Order: sequence, then structure tokens, then C-alpha cells
Amino acid sequence: MEEACEIIQNTGLRGVTIASTKISDVDGKIGKLVYRGCLAKDLAGKATFEEVAFLLLYEKLPDQAELNAFSEELAKNRELPQNIFAAMAAFPKDALPMDVLQAIVPMLAHHDPGVNEHNQETALKIAVKLIAKFATIVAAWDRIRNGKAPVDPDPSLGHAANFFYMLNGEAPEDDLAGFFDAALVLHAEHSFNASTFAAREVASTKAHMYASIAAAVGSLSGALHGGANTRVMNMLKDIGSVDKVEAYVQNILDTGGVIMGLGHAVYQTDDPRAHILAPMSQTLGERAGDTSWYDLSKKLELVGKAAFKEKKGREIYVNVDFYSASLYHYMGIASDLFTPIFAISRISGWSAHVIEEQFGGAAAKPALYRPESDYVGDYCGPDECAFVPVDDR
Amino acid sequence: MEEACEIIQNTGLRGVTIASTKISDVDGKIGKLVYRGCLAKDLAGKATFEEVAFLLLYEKLPDQAELNAFSEELAKNRELPQNIFAAMAAFPKDALPMDVLQAIVPMLAHHDPGVNEHNQETALKIAVKLIAKFATIVAAWDRIRNGKAPVDPDPSLGHAANFFYMLNGEAPEDDLAGFFDAALVLHAEHSFNASTFAAREVASTKAHMYASIAAAVGSLSGALHGGANTRVMNMLKDIGSVDKVEAYVQNILDTGGVIMGLGHAVYQTDDPRAHILAPMSQTLGERAGDTSWYDLSKKLELVGKAAFKEKKGREIYVNVDFYSASLYHYMGIASDLFTPIFAISRISGWSAHVIEEQFGGAAAKPALYRPESDYVGDYCGPDECAFVPVDDR
Repeated sequence: MEEACEIIQNTGLRGVTIASTKISDVDGKIGKLVYRGCLAKDLAGKATFEEVAFLLLYEKLPDQAELNAFSEELAKNRELPQNIFAAMAAFPKDALPMDVLQAIVPMLAHHDPGVNEHNQETALKIAVKLIAKFATIVAAWDRIRNGKAPVDPDPSLGHAANFFYMLNGEAPEDDLAGFFDAALVLHAEHSFNASTFAAREVASTKAHMYASIAAAVGSLSGALHGGANTRVMNMLKDIGSVDKVEAYVQNILDTGGVIMGLGHAVYQTDDPRAHILAPMSQTLGERAGDTSWYDLSKKLELVGKAAFKEKKGREIYVNVDFYSASLYHYMGIASDLFTPIFAISRISGWSAHVIEEQFGGAAAKPALYRPESDYVGDYCGPDECAFVPVDDR
Repeated sequence: MEEACEIIQNTGLRGVTIASTKISDVDGKIGKLVYRGCLAKDLAGKATFEEVAFLLLYEKLPDQAELNAFSEELAKNRELPQNIFAAMAAFPKDALPMDVLQAIVPMLAHHDPGVNEHNQETALKIAVKLIAKFATIVAAWDRIRNGKAPVDPDPSLGHAANFFYMLNGEAPEDDLAGFFDAALVLHAEHSFNASTFAAREVASTKAHMYASIAAAVGSLSGALHGGANTRVMNMLKDIGSVDKVEAYVQNILDTGGVIMGLGHAVYQTDDPRAHILAPMSQTLGERAGDTSWYDLSKKLELVGKAAFKEKKGREIYVNVDFYSASLYHYMGIASDLFTPIFAISRISGWSAHVIEEQFGGAAAKPALYRPESDYVGDYCGPDECAFVPVDDR
């Protein structure tokens, strides 16, 4: 077994199929993303985030009664325990939002008497709590760090609109909420990406849902993963205007750098999610009378693709982070919240994966992830070193 | 590539070599555990935890001057920011210690201005902070949850003795501190176990040290991983006395259960660490005039091994958790602190692995862990489902 798989050593498991799943399917060659049998691009703009979260957790789209009950359950669970607000109020104001989110998740475990119950029903309940509360945590922290009081959730609003309400103190216009809802739908799930794999890895030890999700939050914070959308926005700000795009791309090519938001570990074509996010960014830019961030993104995509093809002889493709950056910016969201917003959505996929890992029946594997490593360090002689006391070193 | 490795699907990567490392070597067949070229069993009782942490981080055992400087640096970093104590004081008193630890780690990131610096020097500094502070967090939480004020660390005491001082308000006897030090040395590192793999997985996204370590804490909390030592103690209490051992083992065999602390994902012989922990447990039992927990453990090991061989036709071996349970119990430590104590030690190995993952030179791999999965869920037709609006479902 080890010999046949020698080739996977030090590849980050890229291209290696390690598990079966019933949750989602990504075909990177043709740019297809499927959640529980449904195309993600069909869901975006048609189904709400609540419908998609239900789909991921319960393996089917809800009927109206199921959707009403699920939405009500989510709305009821939006509030945070009071001492979590107190803890957040004591955090340094410049704490990174992803670090705040990662600290709060285990704190929610402290308040959950079900945390020691290892069964699917409890895990589903915790999933609903986390999906509901992630939006509250992110909105509350943004207000607290800016010296404002958190805004209580409004149970009459859907998940997307309520997030803006908690962030800004007023409900967003319907189409902005709709675009945000679609963005949440598009970020909800993506098979064994690094953060989902981290959640499953922790869950495989029979750790509880909160412990597993806190790991996923840590993984998503990385610059090579969810942290990329914030970095796209920083890059756009660095470039500044469309006339600087060519020079920027040339400099990237000269220095061997990368263009943030172009390229993906799985897709060998454009990310299907990018094609839905781009026109939403354009529309909001036109509405605001300032399409400069969209225009800059579009030009960077075209120039970047052409330059990489010409100079490096390889295709690069736009990924989900590329247009979500300008889209969220047009929505008035601070750029360091882009990654937490990714988490607000992906918590639905993460929790579905934790449940599949722990209670997944046919798709479940026997025990915890425990790979092997190859020791390439030194020995003092033919075998291990003889111990030398500190006085003789 | 995928075809050759098909066999690894749904195996939890068991037996699959996924990376090279210079940190440690485990030979499960002969029961050998090596840290950076040195046998762990040679280090235990001869080198302090500080020496071993230095070894893991700096790739060699320190000379006296290096050890003095490193120990001083650790001692200086034991204190926690004041608002972390305040947050802990507000936690529910029945919060699980591992959940508390997982929440505090990202909170330490909030207070670290170096958190955004992605370089090895900063990562090493954070590693020292975490190694120093883990003991403080665990001791402080145990006091806070019991309504006692945390005890300030004593910089004149070594890492092991200071933990007991912070836990109990008085320094331990030298030999107890020495045994605890040896236990810390034996738990410090164990290649790509589940929690270390989680830390590396998160680190591979370029997430910072705190985010990566919080993931590892979550993974260690699992019942199949670090949570096992607490479960060994619970099992010993359930059995109650040596005369109940045979009936207990028979019941396990009849019901298809497992004996906690027997069996390991990697070792096909006795865990070399267990052979060092067992006599320490016996010595402390004799000292206390009550060897019942040691005797119970020893009988359970012998009866369990014989019964599994006779009835199931397979060998089972004692692992690191089996004798650490009674050992820590004799040290007067609450059983739900056993897993956090594992973390107090393993933080040294975890942080060395995060550094290797991110800055490891020859042993480093190109980019983040991103395996593939095989979709085995339903489609509505030959391809993905057509979207049906909620009204028509």
C-alpha cells in the first residue's frame, strides 16, 4: 500500500481521493459544482441560503413547511450568550476578525449542555446554532471594534438581510440582500477543501462539533485559503486604477508572483461561482455610479489571463475570491470581514461534513485520520543518538 | 496517480506516507520513538521538558548556556494578559477544560502584534509563548472553576514543578516534579498523529501559529485521541477493584467493546512510553500507600492482552494513555485535566511541526493540503438535478 502511494508524499494530497462523500461534487475540469445533486449555479439566486443550508444538512431541498420551521429555528438561535458579548467587549479592538471568530466558537461549547452527547441529532442541533450565530458573531465584532453597541437580530428578516441589519443597524435593500444571499449560497460548500478537511480531521477523533468547526475557522483564515478574498481587495486597492493593470501584471510576471484570485487547486477552467459573482459586482457598481472596482477586476482578469498564457505558456482561471472582493466592497463591507463572511456561509458545509464524518453510514470511514510520515532527519550514528547530558554538550 | 492510490479511500490515511519530516520517527513494529535523532525513552528522566522543547524547536539538544536562556525565556512568558483571566472568570464553571484551552489560544493571538508576520523567527517566538502559557491556562482554569484565585507562576521553578505550583499553590516534591517532567517529555511529540496533522493542515494554508494550534487542541480533545487518557481513568473507576477485572474484560469481549488504553493506530507492540510511565505510577502508588490504581491497571493489561489473544486471536498492546491515567491520578490531578496536560506537553511538538510545515526547507511541500473526494450521493437523473422552486416541492 505504501509503495503504490509513494507518489503522494509531500504533495499536500493534491489530486488524491481520500474519502467518499454524499455532500458535494466538484468537477474541476468542466467547472461543475454540485450540492447534494443540485448545481450550485442553479441554486444561487433561486434558493435562499436557508434552503441550501437545509439541503446540505438534511440531504434534500425543504418543502415550504420544512423551510418555515428551519428558518424559524435559525432565527431563534441567532442570539449569543451575554457573557460572550462581555468577552468580545474586552478583546483588543485590533484583534483580527477570524481570530475572534475562532475564539468564540469554543466559547459557545461552554454554554451548550449537549456538548458531550455524541449523536447525530445533537450534532444537527449544534449545526443550526452555529449557522445562526456565525452571522451574529461577525456583525457584533465589527460593531464592538468600532465602538458601537451590537444590534439585536431581527427575527422577521432572512439570514442574509439580518446580517446587514446587525452590521449596519438598518435592513438592506432587497436586491442587495438577494445578491448577498446568492453569494452565501455559492460559498456554502466545496468538498474536501482545506478548512472542511480540517473540520473532518478533528471530527474523526470524535471531538465535538464546536472543536471541529473552530479548526475549520483557523484553516479558512489562511492566506492560501479563505484569506484570499481579503487579499484580492488589498491587491485591487494597491493597483488603484485600470491604467495601472498592465504594469502590475508585468511586475508579477517579472518577480514570479501571483495574481490573487487567479488560479485554484481544483479548477482547470473558470470557477463557476465567479461567473455569477461578477455581474452582481457590476450591477452594484453601476448602481453606486462607480464601476471602477469592477472595471479594474475585469481588466485584471483579461490582462492577467492573456499575459500568463503568452509569457508563461499556461492558462490561469478566475476563482471565487476574485469577484467576491469587489462585490462585498460595493456592499459596504470592510475588507477584513470578507473571510469571516466566507465562514458565515461555509459553516453550513462544514457542519454537514462533520456530521457525515461522525455519523455518515455508507460514506463513513472506520477511525481517525492518522497518516504516516517519512523521517528524513539526522541520526548520530547508524541508529539513534546516544544521550549526552547537558554538562557534556 | 489517483488510480494507484485508490486503495487509500476511506481508510483515514492509515499507513499512508503523506510527507517527510525531520522532527520525529516512529517505528511501530519495534516500538521505537525518536525525537530529532534521540530516543524518547533515553530523554525521559534524563533531559527536562525544557531541553526537549528546545530540541524539537531548534533541532539539537541545548548546551548549558542555551538551556539557561531558553528556560528563562519560557519563565518570562508564563503570564497571561489580564483580560484573558477576566474572560476565563466569566466562563461557565462546568466548561470543559479542552474547550477552554481551545478558546484561549486564539485569544492569545488577539494580544500578539506579531500575529501577521509570516516568518520563522516570529513563529519560534510564538511557539515559546504558547509552550510557556499552556501550563498557566490549564492551571488557572482549574483554580477558577473551583472558585480559587489563579496562582502567579514562580520563575525560580522549572516548567514541570511550576505547573504544580500554579495548580496547588505549593511546589511539588522533587521526585513528583521529576516524574511529571518525564511524562511531559514522553508526550511531547509523535509524528503525524491526528492533532499534529490538524495543526499542519491549518498551517499549510499560511494561517498563523495560534490558528493552527487551536485546531490541534480541538483534535486532541477527541475521545479517540488525547481524550483517551481521561477515559482510561473513568474506566478504572468504573471497574473499581482488581477482582472485577476478569468480568469487565469478558463483558468487553461479549459486547465488542474496547479496553481504553489498549491498542494504537501505529504501534504493533507495546508503546515504548507505557513502559516508562508504568513504574512511575507504581512508585507513586507505593509512596501513597495505595497501589490499587496501579494494580488494577496492571491486571487489566495482563488479563486484557491474554483474553484478546485467546478469544479474538489477535494481540493488543498497551499505549501511552494506559499508565498515564493512574500516574496523573496519583499526582492528585483531576481526571478531566489529563487531556489538557497532554496538550501542555504536545504543544512543543505541534509548534515544531507548524514551523516545519511553513518554513521547513527540504521537508516542506509546495502548498496547502487539499485532497479530493469521491461523490457517492444522488443525482436526480443522468446528471445533476433540475432546480425545483420551493412552491413546487
